Amino acid sequence: MKLKNLVVVVLLLSMPSFALGQDVRREIHFPDLPNGRTLKCDLHMHTVFSDGQVWPTLRVDEAWREGLDAISITDHIEHQPFKRDIPTAHNRPYEMAQGLAREKSILLIRGAEVTRETPPGHFNAIFLQDVNPLDTKDFYEVFEQAHRQNAFVTWNHPGWQGPERGRWGQEQTTLYERKWMHAIEICNENEYYAEAHGWALEKNLVLVGYSDIHSPSYDHLSRTVENHRTLTLILARDKTVESLREALEAGRTAVWYRNQLIGREPELAALFAACVQIRPPHARSSRDVCAEVVNVSELDIELESTGSARPAKIRLPARSTSLVRFEQPGEDAQKVDLEYRATNFVTAPDRRLEVRLAVPF
Amino acid sequence: MKLKNLVVVVLLLSMPSFALGQDVRREIHFPDLPNGRTLKCDLHMHTVFSDGQVWPTLRVDEAWREGLDAISITDHIEHQPFKRDIPTAHNRPYEMAQGLAREKSILLIRGAEVTRETPPGHFNAIFLQDVNPLDTKDFYEVFEQAHRQNAFVTWNHPGWQGPERGRWGQEQTTLYERKWMHAIEICNENEYYAEAHGWALEKNLVLVGYSDIHSPSYDHLSRTVENHRTLTLILARDKTVESLREALEAGRTAVWYRNQLIGREPELAALFAACVQIRPPHARSSRDVCAEVVNVSELDIELESTGSARPAKIRLPARSTSLVRFEQPGEDAQKVDLEYRATNFVTAPDRRLEVRLAVPF
Amino acid sequence: MKLKNLVVVVLLLSMPSFALGQDVRREIHFPDLPNGRTLKCDLHMHTVFSDGQVWPTLRVDEAWREGLDAISITDHIEHQPFKRDIPTAHNRPYEMAQGLAREKSILLIRGAEVTRETPPGHFNAIFLQDVNPLDTKDFYEVFEQAHRQNAFVTWNHPGWQGPERGRWGQEQTTLYERKWMHAIEICNENEYYAEAHGWALEKNLVLVGYSDIHSPSYDHLSRTVENHRTLTLILARDKTVESLREALEAGRTAVWYRNQLIGREPELAALFAACVQIRPPHARSSRDVCAEVVNVSELDIELESTGSARPAKIRLPARSTSLVRFEQPGEDAQKVDLEYRATNFVTAPDRRLEVRLAVPF
Amino acid sequence: MKLKNLVVVVLLLSMPSFALGQDVRREIHFPDLPNGRTLKCDLHMHTVFSDGQVWPTLRVDEAWREGLDAISITDHIEHQPFKRDIPTAHNRPYEMAQGLAREKSILLIRGAEVTRETPPGHFNAIFLQDVNPLDTKDFYEVFEQAHRQNAFVTWNHPGWQGPERGRWGQEQTTLYERKWMHAIEICNENEYYAEAHGWALEKNLVLVGYSDIHSPSYDHLSRTVENHRTLTLILARDKTVESLREALEAGRTAVWYRNQLIGREPELAALFAACVQIRPPHARSSRDVCAEVVNVSELDIELESTGSARPAKIRLPARSTSLVRFEQPGEDAQKVDLEYRATNFVTAPDRRLEVRLAVPF
Repeated sequence: MKLKNLVVVVLLLSMPSFALGQDVRREIHFPDLPNGRTLKCDLHMHTVFSDGQVWPTLRVDEAWREGLDAISITDHIEHQPFKRDIPTAHNRPYEMAQGLAREKSILLIRGAEVTRETPPGHFNAIFLQDVNPLDTKDFYEVFEQAHRQNAFVTWNHPGWQGPERGRWGQEQTTLYERKWMHAIEICNENEYYAEAHGWALEKNLVLVGYSDIHSPSYDHLSRTVENHRTLTLILARDKTVESLREALEAGRTAVWYRNQLIGREPELAALFAACVQIRPPHARSSRDVCAEVVNVSELDIELESTGSARPAKIRLPARSTSLVRFEQPGEDAQKVDLEYRATNFVTAPDRRLEVRLAVPF
Repeated sequence: MKLKNLVVVVLLLSMPSFALGQDVRREIHFPDLPNGRTLKCDLHMHTVFSDGQVWPTLRVDEAWREGLDAISITDHIEHQPFKRDIPTAHNRPYEMAQGLAREKSILLIRGAEVTRETPPGHFNAIFLQDVNPLDTKDFYEVFEQAHRQNAFVTWNHPGWQGPERGRWGQEQTTLYERKWMHAIEICNENEYYAEAHGWALEKNLVLVGYSDIHSPSYDHLSRTVENHRTLTLILARDKTVESLREALEAGRTAVWYRNQLIGREPELAALFAACVQIRPPHARSSRDVCAEVVNVSELDIELESTGSARPAKIRLPARSTSLVRFEQPGEDAQKVDLEYRATNFVTAPDRRLEVRLAVPF
Repeated sequence: MKLKNLVVVVLLLSMPSFALGQDVRREIHFPDLPNGRTLKCDLHMHTVFSDGQVWPTLRVDEAWREGLDAISITDHIEHQPFKRDIPTAHNRPYEMAQGLAREKSILLIRGAEVTRETPPGHFNAIFLQDVNPLDTKDFYEVFEQAHRQNAFVTWNHPGWQGPERGRWGQEQTTLYERKWMHAIEICNENEYYAEAHGWALEKNLVLVGYSDIHSPSYDHLSRTVENHRTLTLILARDKTVESLREALEAGRTAVWYRNQLIGREPELAALFAACVQIRPPHARSSRDVCAEVVNVSELDIELESTGSARPAKIRLPARSTSLVRFEQPGEDAQKVDLEYRATNFVTAPDRRLEVRLAVPF
Repeated sequence: MKLKNLVVVVLLLSMPSFALGQDVRREIHFPDLPNGRTLKCDLHMHTVFSDGQVWPTLRVDEAWREGLDAISITDHIEHQPFKRDIPTAHNRPYEMAQGLAREKSILLIRGAEVTRETPPGHFNAIFLQDVNPLDTKDFYEVFEQAHRQNAFVTWNHPGWQGPERGRWGQEQTTLYERKWMHAIEICNENEYYAEAHGWALEKNLVLVGYSDIHSPSYDHLSRTVENHRTLTLILARDKTVESLREALEAGRTAVWYRNQLIGREPELAALFAACVQIRPPHARSSRDVCAEVVNVSELDIELESTGSARPAKIRLPARSTSLVRFEQPGEDAQKVDLEYRATNFVTAPDRRLEVRLAVPF
């Protein structure tokens, strides 16, 4: 009968991939550098094993689907609101997610969030072997335990309860001096902490930023240039946990926060160079050239001239080719480096990356 | 300093609503009928309390955000794969979600899924007072317990393991004869069971279709005309649990499945009339009129002429106004009812709703 | 043969509406007021008959598709860059578009753009019977001709060549004193002229804003809350040219510019009241109520408390329902008017509409 | 004053690229082959110089914005409905568009559409030096003139007025035998002509498909996998007109029509190999491997097993990475070529490309 066949055909034609048992990944387009891999990492997130809303394996599914390379599930140690229904079991999220992570090639790092009053606040310890020894009353004892397991410790979201409670305090000084604290989370999902950014630069702590997600992640559908999971790009040699750790400890990071990359100058300069390419110009007149500028990254890159270069402002939309008409600065210039500031490559709270565009006149 | 201010301003401007503690609802646009409310209902879903991936309260958040009016969390009674971490507690999902449901004005109905081998398969019991008595070995004993609590029982996804295992069996006959089974889930998320649709019509069982969702729901972002959560529109007098129950028992339902409504003729005819409106024509010639046709619903409504009416095919995109040039059938006709078949208003596996369009010539 | 059938079926299923000879309209959702129609009007646009890129009839197709009610094609009189290929013919765009406009129920108004050096700049004359008499050298002669035809004259985009050349000059004074100039275009596509807004308020000239589009319009696809064709809402009694004219002359307008409405207080207050509705609250505690707030308009409405009302900020996304938790201001208040400022309802360059939200505590 | 500053800042922040005088290109992602360039070509389109709705330069803007490499404006020679307003001038579209094409690096080819009753129908002649000699009454005389200019001639949309009028007739035989007709347009925007596809294969004519667009193009906004401008991929050595011509004459083409590529086997096989890449598997068990499959193209590629390979069906969404669990066919297989049919790589009306997937077990 005709209608029945039609129904069957409709079903077949519109059968989504997941109905075939497949998964689709939306890649995050920040290019690899010549000497390594640009790993997209979210090392701060929660599940129902503390106060999150999802089961641990979902965090791996999300990570793969959203183009991540590495995650750490960092459930709160002390904050266990679902205890009545889920008895405390600090190592279970990692254990449960491990098999799926292997299958999906997601680097899974064992972690936990030390959750104290603010101040001193919250801290993530990752690369742990066993979370349980950190479940102890004494504040410094926790970090000593982490240190014994050779953990990497981050001070989380310093300003989330306001600048007053987010000050660098005695505890931070002590942890820092004992080398028990290695990084500061200068961005946490929708917040950026300019002051903490300054401390990290001053004290040479590693710059990181993560989602701290508690709900499901909707990024594979909702990701835009302005709104996306806050991540850290870790510039590792390879896609292995060891490589990632080496790069993290060496501070080779850039935080992808809204339409910005925040990091140190060498990393941002290398990323800018890998993201932007100027093609040979289409047409030239005596006064200007018209050239395609390709931006392969997820950022809408914004440039402003720091001197006489024209145009005064250039905007390179994410993952697009733009046609820009550059003015020739002098008479017989053949190839000129035009000076710009990349206003969304942030090297300090009040500093932006300076770049030179090599335009072939 | 200028850059700092800029950052602050950017943050303020792009601050999403949820950062202000607000939630936004994406309504589902099927209109109310003159004498009641068109309730959008998903009465089949799971949480971590059986094999779902999310915490019970999330189901309420999703329901509000996605435009639903009523839900039932129906975790499996017998299938408890997360038991090691979450000790069995059949009533907890309902208890935990209740407060939030009240706040968000979501009708929350206590339910559970009886989960046996197929055949006889799975069944939902809703409007329960206590799920625990249904956790018993004997098959008929379960339904007797449900019956004692005056539950409404649905045979779930009859064909999900293939037509052979999805036959109407002795158990179905027994439940049906004892009046312990009231509805058949003729659609379950991406599947439609034409044969079961026939049984429901033949035996006068209520037609329902639900999502049976285990993962988080992404519908507030991903909903399209073809891909959305499968729901049942229940044509109730009011938005109360009592009204909903009365309408459900009376069979006043329509299943919203992909780009179709599947139901009985009276309900589909009433919904069609409420969804489609023909405005006075813009322009007329001796041979045709050009009129705006408004479709306020979520369906791309498809019509085909069953006789001499022209155009032969009309497509009315969801929630849009279409301009249609109707041919005048006779010489001095003033207002003519043109005969069409609404090919996505399904009244039986092989039957579509016939409608008359009153075009003012 | 199976594959052939499949191809046919695919074609049928995915046949877009336009393949059936139909057109689909994307409505612009600003509600009608109790006593009239909220007409969406773009009375400034171009075609190949001056320096636009499209044929006149396309402007009607675009208007219908994009939800407009009225347009005026206002090709430049003096600026005729395509003259070599299209001999000057000022009335042709109107004549050619008329039939289609009638068919699609678009109000089409004959107009033209007087195009002089800036200053004095460009001016639109609409409601003309014949454009040709305006094609004359003398500046004031043009406006006398327009006046004889009882035209409505707008000073276009005062600041488009910078504030210096956009000053109110002697010509403006003369035209104003002779009552030959009736409105100022305070917004022109992506520009807003705060100073001109002030002049219009001071001199009681009508506030209008239009697209001035030269390229094809992509709004049916690209329209967002922030980026859309700049339009004027004209608050007319009916959808007729006479009604539109009466309302325009009476100054009952609001300019829809990016995520703002710009107009006089009475019109903006009436529109706000029609756009926002607070539903009876879902739940209440001793200290607050949780209520759905519906915004039926195309604006993301932004409110900030001007006093003690809480929340301090509310954002109501376009065409959505939001759940807001209002704090009860006093002890035994039953229904309280909470005082807010609607920061995107602009009543003067430095003033925003003040509103009271009637929340039933 | 605060509000004023805010307005300025908002303007700056949301200033779209075109406000900065820039253009953005949405690339079409079909990869280059090892030995050349995959040129995206639309060699059939109209402007106001025949019955199109747009000015010639817009066709170049559209082409650049939509990722094309080459276009030909092919206005009708005999069909001149806008003659009253635009006197016939066959070479003007090309002349006017030339400068902009050079600036934007679009290959612009002079062409025209010979427009006769159907049958014999419409024909495009491209690579012309002068269109005027083709404006002559006698049918064969037109093609002789084209031949003298060494033109490349395509029989356009054979079936657009139904199969009866679209038959291969005496005129086609004559043109074919004289070598005055070189290609058949087997797809024209939303139509595919299976029968004409057969004739082209049988007589070794070049396979092409184009948009034949008359209205503005909205593809930079509306392009989806199923709905896009119909194009021909020409597999040229370089991006030059000479290279393009050599490849077109040699028949190295593939028509991108809806979610299909239609071409000859060597071209489709080469394109498939360039589009699909299988990465080393993530995980393996004794029975299967789980591997990422990358599809860099704009097609949702659909595969079905032609033998024992499993999964039976695979769907690789456009420009995405998919995770596929392949079953190991035999015991000690190390690397096995699994046999599939790519159901949307069409090598004949009833034939699809057969491919082998090299999965490293």
